[in-house]
Amino acid sequence: MKQTRTGLLLVVSGPAGVGKGSVNNGLIKRNRDIRMSVSATTRPARPGEIDGVHYFFKSENDFKRMIEEGAFLEYMRVFNTHYYGTPKSFVEQELKEGRSVILEIDVQGAMRVKEAYPDAVLIFIAPPSMSELKTRLIGRGTENTDAVERRFATAYKELDFAEKYDYIVVNDILDRAISRVEHIISAERCRSSRNGELIGKLIGGRKEL
Amino acid sequence: MKQTRTGLLLVVSGPAGVGKGSVNNGLIKRNRDIRMSVSATTRPARPGEIDGVHYFFKSENDFKRMIEEGAFLEYMRVFNTHYYGTPKSFVEQELKEGRSVILEIDVQGAMRVKEAYPDAVLIFIAPPSMSELKTRLIGRGTENTDAVERRFATAYKELDFAEKYDYIVVNDILDRAISRVEHIISAERCRSSRNGELIGKLIGGRKEL
Repeated sequence: MKQTRTGLLLVVSGPAGVGKGSVNNGLIKRNRDIRMSVSATTRPARPGEIDGVHYFFKSENDFKRMIEEGAFLEYMRVFNTHYYGTPKSFVEQELKEGRSVILEIDVQGAMRVKEAYPDAVLIFIAPPSMSELKTRLIGRGTENTDAVERRFATAYKELDFAEKYDYIVVNDILDRAISRVEHIISAERCRSSRNGELIGKLIGGRKEL
Repeated sequence: MKQTRTGLLLVVSGPAGVGKGSVNNGLIKRNRDIRMSVSATTRPARPGEIDGVHYFFKSENDFKRMIEEGAFLEYMRVFNTHYYGTPKSFVEQELKEGRSVILEIDVQGAMRVKEAYPDAVLIFIAPPSMSELKTRLIGRGTENTDAVERRFATAYKELDFAEKYDYIVVNDILDRAISRVEHIISAERCRSSRNGELIGKLIGGRKEL
């Protein structure tokens, strides 16, 4: 009997600029059995965004119908405008086929997922220091000073949630952070709560021997 | 700030013949910051056994004095004859210096350690199958058929405890089993319950920035 290799539902959060995207991209490149979940949204596509790759772009009517059908693992409405949600079908299909799925979502979404799927593994990516986070935010060069300050202030609020996650991975050196997440996946597969069937089969053979 | 690298108290159990010793030896050879704990006992040394290496050999009076002094992390008396125990001082000193310590003890001892040290990480080494376990037990060639049968029957009782452990590692291929334990150590260092200080320091800097 081999070690359990079920797919895991991984929730990865962390403040803007911490490098969540780089960690997740690294994981996917290094592991063929890990996939990113694609969110659905009612906001319009931005230039360059591809339907089904960056988001599933939905009309508000379609999104509401999906809510009624229970098609979301979690969803939210931002500032009374656009909806965002994680479609259940993709995630469940991948898990069933033994692959792990990464949800890159915010702290509120992470808490909702944990409630709905207690087996989910919540990973918070933390910066090595707040000044390093600020440097990375500025270094992205995609936002003006106001936006950087706003994101930086939000980072503190997000860090308040870190201890509600199962794991905290410091993204000091990207390769190390990716390896840590890989080790978490490997370790989680060994958790006794995920190996009851294995022990059951070992003990179940008692009469045969 | 770097990922927490505190020492972990690792409890490794598993049925006779499963290869606990080989896994632990591999861990120690591959990781300079992991040590084996040495148990104390009142049973006489067997030929080849070295005091302080295989066991700390103690008189019954010395052992009882150590019990009174609270010097044991856990201890037990086997069949009203010999005492066995884990001296606290060595373990605590190693953990303090950031090294991890492995206790290779039985399921009863493991439960007592978990009660005294809830932070301990309990790992149960399981065989890939019961017939493979029997093959390994016979292959050791150190015991007669009766002893093999006795140990094999005990294995089932031990497996009943496996789900009380934090992790179950199948020793199918030795190198893989060792890697799994290494991944567990790496993952446990990322557990949010062990990284409160790190987050505290990140948030604590709020006023400075």
